[in-house]
Amino acid sequence: MNLLEKFSLRIAEEIRRLDIKGSPAELYEPVEYVLSIGGKRIRPALVLLGCDLFNGETERALPPALGIEVFHNFTLLHDDIMDNAPIRRSKPTVHEKWSINTAILSGDAMFVKAYQLVSQVEDSVLRPVLDLFSRTALDMNFEGRENVSIAEYERMIELKTAVLLGTSLKIGALVAKASGKEAGLLYDFGRNLGIAFQLQDDLLDVYGDKAFGKQTGGDIIAGKKTYLLLKALELAEGENQRQLNRLLSRTEGISDSEKVTGVTAIFDELDIAGHAREEMRLYFDKAMDSLERISVSPEKKKGLGDFAEQLMERKI
Amino acid sequence: MNLLEKFSLRIAEEIRRLDIKGSPAELYEPVEYVLSIGGKRIRPALVLLGCDLFNGETERALPPALGIEVFHNFTLLHDDIMDNAPIRRSKPTVHEKWSINTAILSGDAMFVKAYQLVSQVEDSVLRPVLDLFSRTALDMNFEGRENVSIAEYERMIELKTAVLLGTSLKIGALVAKASGKEAGLLYDFGRNLGIAFQLQDDLLDVYGDKAFGKQTGGDIIAGKKTYLLLKALELAEGENQRQLNRLLSRTEGISDSEKVTGVTAIFDELDIAGHAREEMRLYFDKAMDSLERISVSPEKKKGLGDFAEQLMERKI
Repeated sequence: MNLLEKFSLRIAEEIRRLDIKGSPAELYEPVEYVLSIGGKRIRPALVLLGCDLFNGETERALPPALGIEVFHNFTLLHDDIMDNAPIRRSKPTVHEKWSINTAILSGDAMFVKAYQLVSQVEDSVLRPVLDLFSRTALDMNFEGRENVSIAEYERMIELKTAVLLGTSLKIGALVAKASGKEAGLLYDFGRNLGIAFQLQDDLLDVYGDKAFGKQTGGDIIAGKKTYLLLKALELAEGENQRQLNRLLSRTEGISDSEKVTGVTAIFDELDIAGHAREEMRLYFDKAMDSLERISVSPEKKKGLGDFAEQLMERKI
Repeated sequence: MNLLEKFSLRIAEEIRRLDIKGSPAELYEPVEYVLSIGGKRIRPALVLLGCDLFNGETERALPPALGIEVFHNFTLLHDDIMDNAPIRRSKPTVHEKWSINTAILSGDAMFVKAYQLVSQVEDSVLRPVLDLFSRTALDMNFEGRENVSIAEYERMIELKTAVLLGTSLKIGALVAKASGKEAGLLYDFGRNLGIAFQLQDDLLDVYGDKAFGKQTGGDIIAGKKTYLLLKALELAEGENQRQLNRLLSRTEGISDSEKVTGVTAIFDELDIAGHAREEMRLYFDKAMDSLERISVSPEKKKGLGDFAEQLMERKI
């Protein structure tokens, strides 16, 4: 078992112990439900990895790690209401199982709970941890839901996914009392890795096999403005451009499978996958560069290097 | 101009200056809209009063005071979604003017902003201020939406309204570095005053004149389980009991005005207003007793004593 797996198990154990009682059952049950469904607990494990990297006591990083996990699940809960999503991790979402009002209130309660947990750090690091957490929460919240340019798309996924990976690692580093510079490098590692990961997620949605549990082409059917689609819109000319616009228009009664096949064919012709892989590699290399510049021994960094590799190989 | 008025003006000025930009217009506009609509800014003014009571520098209490106001408006925003309320303070609510999704997201952003502002206090008081704020937010959030007994009703209004008044004052006291005991007494003053105020609000809904801008009998029409109604249900017997149950049942096609007239007649017969005034007086006296026990000069306490009197006379 590597360090990440060890930490993930430790987190799962603590989540089960988490006391969110003292609240009426109507709010307590949905919160427990959401937290029990699981997921890979990557973000809280990163808090512990960040702390361990600088030889901090990882047990001290547990409360903020749990806070990050509660916060992450809060964002999913409110996102699911807004996206009108019926299912999350193969289970009915809270607003489906209970009601929208229960989902709003439970989410708000989780948000406060997240702050309470994240604040359970030593006095000397309370303010930087808190400031970082609030800024991240605000950034993620303010992520634009509409986006046009590739730059905007990358900014969006940076805000939505990548900043929380960076923040998780940096909170761990702060708990371990790493210097601002070192903690900042670790943040950059997490953020750039997160962007690379998200680009790969877009790729897998079109080219991935079904082992990842996602419907192939789901993003195309949903008309989601991914990196792939935005790049295709940028590069397509002539007949490809006309065909792409026709497939993307919602009025013409094109079947989902026709849409997926047609758009994928244009992606192939324009080598969109190649472009995406190049972009992904760019961010991955940036991440690894930041990690290298951190002044701890290579052995100590191995856990995070392995994590990065595994994440990109979809082994976690 | 008394101290409360002075502080309220100061708050209004700071709210106008509050920088919530840096976010996309779709979220920034609703937040600015909500904050600009106004209200009496009582809660943030209480933060300043609490600070002033212990000779603290009130300018230092301004950021947490603004945080309390932003938080209060966040709760109204999410409550309005859940209550499906079209109007707040004579203006369309955010979910009406924009959308439910915008209202959820703007609310979440305000919540983070509130934490950021509340955290802008000296390091030595950061943790107690933060702990108090989180506990209050959780208490208010977990307020049960259904209630049956009078004790439960009073607990509910305590959680919903009164704890935030107590918290506002106590945060001011903490900023001024008052002792835990003194800050606790000030919290009790605010909490009990808040309960008395809410009971009076229930009374005015039935017996108040229209100068307060509320429709008379609105709570009766809505079937809201106020102190008055719960007390009437407790005391009514025989014909009164049958008549009350008939008026409260939703199926019989009773007009709103018939309902208000009928329920009010029963209230009168059972002297429900007398009972409510007695209860109100009890909480008011508790509040004043706590205020008296605070070890500062009577002159210094005058502002809060006046505030309490004015609040109960509905002059503010």
